[in-house]
Amino acid sequence: MELIRVPFQEMKSVFKQILLNYNFTENKAEKCAEVFAINSLEGVYSHGIYRFPRFVDYLKKGYVDPGAEPELIHSAGALEQWNGNLGPGILNAEFCTRRAMKIAAENGIGCVSIANTNHWMRGGTYGWQAAKKGFVFIGWTNTEKNMPAWGAKDSRLGNNPLVFAVPYKDEAIVLDFAMTQFSYGKMEATKMENSELPFPGGFDKKGSLTSNPSEILETRRALPIGYWKGAGLSLLLDILATILSAGRSTKDLSGLEAEYGVSQVFIAIDIKKLSNFPAIEKTIDEIISDIKNSVSDENQPEVRYPGERIVRTREDNLNNGIPALKKIWEKILDMKQP
Amino acid sequence: MELIRVPFQEMKSVFKQILLNYNFTENKAEKCAEVFAINSLEGVYSHGIYRFPRFVDYLKKGYVDPGAEPELIHSAGALEQWNGNLGPGILNAEFCTRRAMKIAAENGIGCVSIANTNHWMRGGTYGWQAAKKGFVFIGWTNTEKNMPAWGAKDSRLGNNPLVFAVPYKDEAIVLDFAMTQFSYGKMEATKMENSELPFPGGFDKKGSLTSNPSEILETRRALPIGYWKGAGLSLLLDILATILSAGRSTKDLSGLEAEYGVSQVFIAIDIKKLSNFPAIEKTIDEIISDIKNSVSDENQPEVRYPGERIVRTREDNLNNGIPALKKIWEKILDMKQP
Repeated sequence: MELIRVPFQEMKSVFKQILLNYNFTENKAEKCAEVFAINSLEGVYSHGIYRFPRFVDYLKKGYVDPGAEPELIHSAGALEQWNGNLGPGILNAEFCTRRAMKIAAENGIGCVSIANTNHWMRGGTYGWQAAKKGFVFIGWTNTEKNMPAWGAKDSRLGNNPLVFAVPYKDEAIVLDFAMTQFSYGKMEATKMENSELPFPGGFDKKGSLTSNPSEILETRRALPIGYWKGAGLSLLLDILATILSAGRSTKDLSGLEAEYGVSQVFIAIDIKKLSNFPAIEKTIDEIISDIKNSVSDENQPEVRYPGERIVRTREDNLNNGIPALKKIWEKILDMKQP
Repeated sequence: MELIRVPFQEMKSVFKQILLNYNFTENKAEKCAEVFAINSLEGVYSHGIYRFPRFVDYLKKGYVDPGAEPELIHSAGALEQWNGNLGPGILNAEFCTRRAMKIAAENGIGCVSIANTNHWMRGGTYGWQAAKKGFVFIGWTNTEKNMPAWGAKDSRLGNNPLVFAVPYKDEAIVLDFAMTQFSYGKMEATKMENSELPFPGGFDKKGSLTSNPSEILETRRALPIGYWKGAGLSLLLDILATILSAGRSTKDLSGLEAEYGVSQVFIAIDIKKLSNFPAIEKTIDEIISDIKNSVSDENQPEVRYPGERIVRTREDNLNNGIPALKKIWEKILDMKQP
């Protein structure tokens, strides 16, 4: 399959033109296209260019309402509950991130939950946005059912991605991880390459751990990170997103014809409010230096902190264009015709 | 090794008498003994009865100061920074939990961090305390180095336990998990039994995953939950605990002669402040019921939610006494003589 490299500005501009065909305002099309393009620029292609066609499909089907605005349901000091009114997940999530930062700037910490919103694409997006403005960020979303509880065969938990981010120099340290060890996208790609997963990623028909993606795709028993621990964390994240936002649970979402109307939580902490603010960069630097000085395992790549690779990928893709399957990019170009 | 069963009240009373020998006030001895006894009652023996002798040793060595009180360093709205002054970790953590709940009762959410405190024993303790009073709880501690970064051979990360808790009927759903797949205590116990871990728990000398506890105890390369994901989460939890509290990092802690003076974070959310408060119990019940109705894997025990087993263990141990190795209990009884 032929790979081409698409310049960032071109990709963003194409996304924007397409969104304008679907009743996005100029401003909303710009913001939404930018996030899809940045996700691609930063190497998260699965939630950038390769996810864009499905986003357009959801617009067509009316699962995502480009005109919807988030609406305040309830405010209790530094805690707010919003309704996303099925607006674009990216725009709602950016809104909630800004809102949590605003509350944190006043109260030290802010917690914004949103019900009835849509897929935020890449959770790390909001971690980067907050951290680059000087805020600690903790956020998560629930999803439809795609992972079994521990000791179960059928999927009743979501993979519920969780994001932790912290400012670091002009960049950020951003951890963005789902509760399944490998995504279904990764398993499908590995299967197509006739290859094995680097570590066990799920269960086979006999209920044994396997690194064979075909076996896992057959049983649909993806492995929770840390076995029972990730399954437990997924459950807690779903319960918290659901009750904090008064929104749909993973269980509720799975009764729908597609994954829309999810529940999310955004917590921001303003590090400028801390007594030790001037020393924070040095403190983090010392921790990172220590980790980077680890004795390396010769079987593994260098020791990196979460988000470190993003910075390099961003630079490479900015200079050389964003790698994209030609076939998919052409399909997207075709969408420019309304 | 002979097991006896010690009544809860007896265990608590013995702990209390011993603490009174070490300059604890009546009130502090009572509270601290209660937590050690409840941890044992609820089946977390490793951080109850079996940890008590080391706690006494730390009192003797002056790592823990029974007279110290937490001290407010800085307040910024719903965000507070405290100094634990090397007081007993249990008492400091109980204090911070109450303080976070108090802030949350006023502001919806409260975040209290504490530097220079001591081992909180079992993180779940504070999750249970907050959740049983109607608060969501998210809290974590850093630890000394006991887990390698991903791709590293030497330990530079802590296992940094993380707790999520939510009220559920008269009890709570409490997830309390460390970033290592198995604790060193579990690995040592499994080795003593000449047995294998139920799943890979670390790396052998060749850098391959192994379920053999002896091999992991030799390399000291415990497996992070979810491989690179748990290693990343450990790093973020350490950075956040360190900068939010202005305290010691995992790196700093490992320069000391013993693990004391750790950094912790306590976040509470008051669910009574939510618009949907009256519906929350039913919402959680529906989620839990759905999980419990999973199709079971015949190789695994029933599907449980985090904390479910605690309630049963508590009842059993309350009725029949707390199981304890006779030798250890006798050693503790000997400590009653000052």
